[in-house]
Amino acid sequence: MDDPTSSVLLTDFYQLTMLHGYFRQAMEETAVFELFVRKLPPRRGFLLAAGLEQALEFLEALRFTPEELAWLEETGRFDRAFLDRLAKLRFTGDVDALPEGTVCFADEPILRITAPLPQAQLVETRLMNLIHLETMIASKAARSVLAAPGKLLVDFGLRRTHGAEAGLLAARATYLAGFAGTATVLAGKRFGVPLYGTMAHSFVQAHADEAAAFEHFARAQPDNVILLIDTYDTEAGAAKVVEVAARLRRDNIAVKGVRLDSGDLGEHARRVRRILDAGGLTQTIIFASGNLDEDELTRLVAAGAPIDGFGVGTRLDTSADAPYLDMAYKLQEYAGRARRKRSEGKATWPGRKQVFRHRDRDGRLVRDVLTLEADRQAGEPLLVPCMRAGRRLAPAPSLEEARRRAARQLAQLPEHLRRLETAPPYEVEVTPALRELARAVDEGLPS
Amino acid sequence: MDDPTSSVLLTDFYQLTMLHGYFRQAMEETAVFELFVRKLPPRRGFLLAAGLEQALEFLEALRFTPEELAWLEETGRFDRAFLDRLAKLRFTGDVDALPEGTVCFADEPILRITAPLPQAQLVETRLMNLIHLETMIASKAARSVLAAPGKLLVDFGLRRTHGAEAGLLAARATYLAGFAGTATVLAGKRFGVPLYGTMAHSFVQAHADEAAAFEHFARAQPDNVILLIDTYDTEAGAAKVVEVAARLRRDNIAVKGVRLDSGDLGEHARRVRRILDAGGLTQTIIFASGNLDEDELTRLVAAGAPIDGFGVGTRLDTSADAPYLDMAYKLQEYAGRARRKRSEGKATWPGRKQVFRHRDRDGRLVRDVLTLEADRQAGEPLLVPCMRAGRRLAPAPSLEEARRRAARQLAQLPEHLRRLETAPPYEVEVTPALRELARAVDEGLPS
Repeated sequence: MDDPTSSVLLTDFYQLTMLHGYFRQAMEETAVFELFVRKLPPRRGFLLAAGLEQALEFLEALRFTPEELAWLEETGRFDRAFLDRLAKLRFTGDVDALPEGTVCFADEPILRITAPLPQAQLVETRLMNLIHLETMIASKAARSVLAAPGKLLVDFGLRRTHGAEAGLLAARATYLAGFAGTATVLAGKRFGVPLYGTMAHSFVQAHADEAAAFEHFARAQPDNVILLIDTYDTEAGAAKVVEVAARLRRDNIAVKGVRLDSGDLGEHARRVRRILDAGGLTQTIIFASGNLDEDELTRLVAAGAPIDGFGVGTRLDTSADAPYLDMAYKLQEYAGRARRKRSEGKATWPGRKQVFRHRDRDGRLVRDVLTLEADRQAGEPLLVPCMRAGRRLAPAPSLEEARRRAARQLAQLPEHLRRLETAPPYEVEVTPALRELARAVDEGLPS
Repeated sequence: MDDPTSSVLLTDFYQLTMLHGYFRQAMEETAVFELFVRKLPPRRGFLLAAGLEQALEFLEALRFTPEELAWLEETGRFDRAFLDRLAKLRFTGDVDALPEGTVCFADEPILRITAPLPQAQLVETRLMNLIHLETMIASKAARSVLAAPGKLLVDFGLRRTHGAEAGLLAARATYLAGFAGTATVLAGKRFGVPLYGTMAHSFVQAHADEAAAFEHFARAQPDNVILLIDTYDTEAGAAKVVEVAARLRRDNIAVKGVRLDSGDLGEHARRVRRILDAGGLTQTIIFASGNLDEDELTRLVAAGAPIDGFGVGTRLDTSADAPYLDMAYKLQEYAGRARRKRSEGKATWPGRKQVFRHRDRDGRLVRDVLTLEADRQAGEPLLVPCMRAGRRLAPAPSLEEARRRAARQLAQLPEHLRRLETAPPYEVEVTPALRELARAVDEGLPS
């Protein structure tokens, strides 16, 4: 079985037909492509860049296997000379990018590829597929992190993510954005994301008696007892927890928490808190889940609901209010000349670009300047070299490092963006140098 | 590297902790779980079941590898006896399901698992992950198929799908729903979905001259010449196509089509059609793409835009207006007794169920009856046996077969559902027998 996450054939058919054309015309000079978001979705004031690590792994591993080449040959669409070129194809180019966890905005390059044209072209689909997904999810997750400061946030979304890789990478991206962990086991194994889990309704239903279900669960997993109490009646469930906790205490098993998963979570939490406290379970936390997103978290936090942690799932991991970004990967330079697409409503800024970030004395973001790389400006340059001639310049940074960067940058956002307001938009200034190049490209002047 | 699409660890952590509990209590009697959608999204009047084939492959292959077991042991969360049980675990249960391409509605089981409780529990997350994705996308794609009858529809969405598996399975699900094919190469290799592709703006931009780009592309791929004409100016691009086509004709190369990708597609198509016709290219088709979905297709078709085919991408493959379904997988029976969850707003119908479909004389769908399997009703039973004791009852049906079923069922939808109207909702009648069982379970009566 082909692993879709590692096959070079997870690409658009036109990449292959274009490569055919490029090889045939010997168009293999250096191309510069930049990946960026044209316009933020209506409810997003900022993005959090993520997915670079998976993108670099993809570029390092890029190759056509003999089995893939044999299949391409069978299609009868490609000649032998082309397939021989594909067999030798590796990524030998350069990558400059925003480190994962960097806050970014529309029009700012998230990643730049500088490579012989066929290579730079071929990688388009999968690079976008990876960075689009993780940036979208990290940006969505950051909203929950900002909405519920100090709360334990856990990614619960795997069952309704769009397939396996979406689930795995959503766990990574939400952790990067500041979640405490995930329920997705494979993300623990693959990325070291801390794992959290409770129990499902079926566990309770399979027992004849709810209290027996609680006790059995606790004795099987005495170190991590979080009991789901809404299968039949939430407050009755809480009362049973108090009863079971007394028996468990004799064996030194503590009920770490209870979980609510339906109804008015704030109201149930208040009642359950009273029942637990009256039963002496003041240390037992209340964890809530069920149709949550940043709006619901904002509401619950503002209402002072006594909820200590949240399992956030479907709406987070599908970025339900903005399930895609207007992301593009565009040719900005070829063979030493700046290029520009002028399609209606989709024109791009040409040339190799850099973003310079300005901050105030407290480190708070003030504005960004988008310009040509060669047009050195004041401020912190955001795109950093990651790969040269197909090789990484440094070992992969840890996910923890990206997570710390995200936390720092979220703390440094302008206050209204931290409150999830989108107006006024953050200023990204386009320099005269960049405007002049666009004009020159339009007029066909030597650039 | 772990392939997330085949690892049994692509599951929720609580499945493992619950399994631990079940084994410890020797709770391994037969459980019946059903997977269904609780409520259709606001703009959906029906769903198209898909993903069963991937679900069955998952069940057949289910096992913990030694490497996965070693990692679980390292976490220190599980004892040796439990890991030994996991090492031997295989899926030995039964599956009954709607064949792929079956039209279905809220509350109707799409799939039923009958298996020892730990097995039936463990498979929850991935079964839902697969069937949720493909059913959601097939249901979305069916809307484009109904909106643009007779048009060539191609899935263009890979770059903004949520990861690799979403892209691969979206190509499969859209084809199943009636699309002509996809741009996703791996879907051609893996599922035999017909491949379509044109060219990107970068191909045009990389050339100094647009007409030269067209000619080079055509000579490299003479059998499949579809030229993208909106990189700079759409109508000027069309005029260049006419000019280039004359030269190509001498070498017996025909321009099969042009593609529009920006601006007012209907208006551009009209102007481009005139330019092509005036230039003698009456056989050259017009293909359009760019921010399309069923609403835009409906508009373009109603306006009589001279567009022959559409590349539908992001909004289709992310099901942008409904990026998740309210899908659940619930315990309906354990150890011979019906079970029911009663959580607020999430109560389920207990027991092993069947759906009986009623049609009029023309085969048109009239109403469905949801009842207990044992309560034999008139009408066509929709759930069919697929697997017994872990083995398939028949070889996997072909994707073409599922596609034909989908086409038949879409043709048989009530007229207002074919027009994508959601009111009145299709009738799914719940029988007295099922209501009585729910009451008996609630009252704790023997069922």
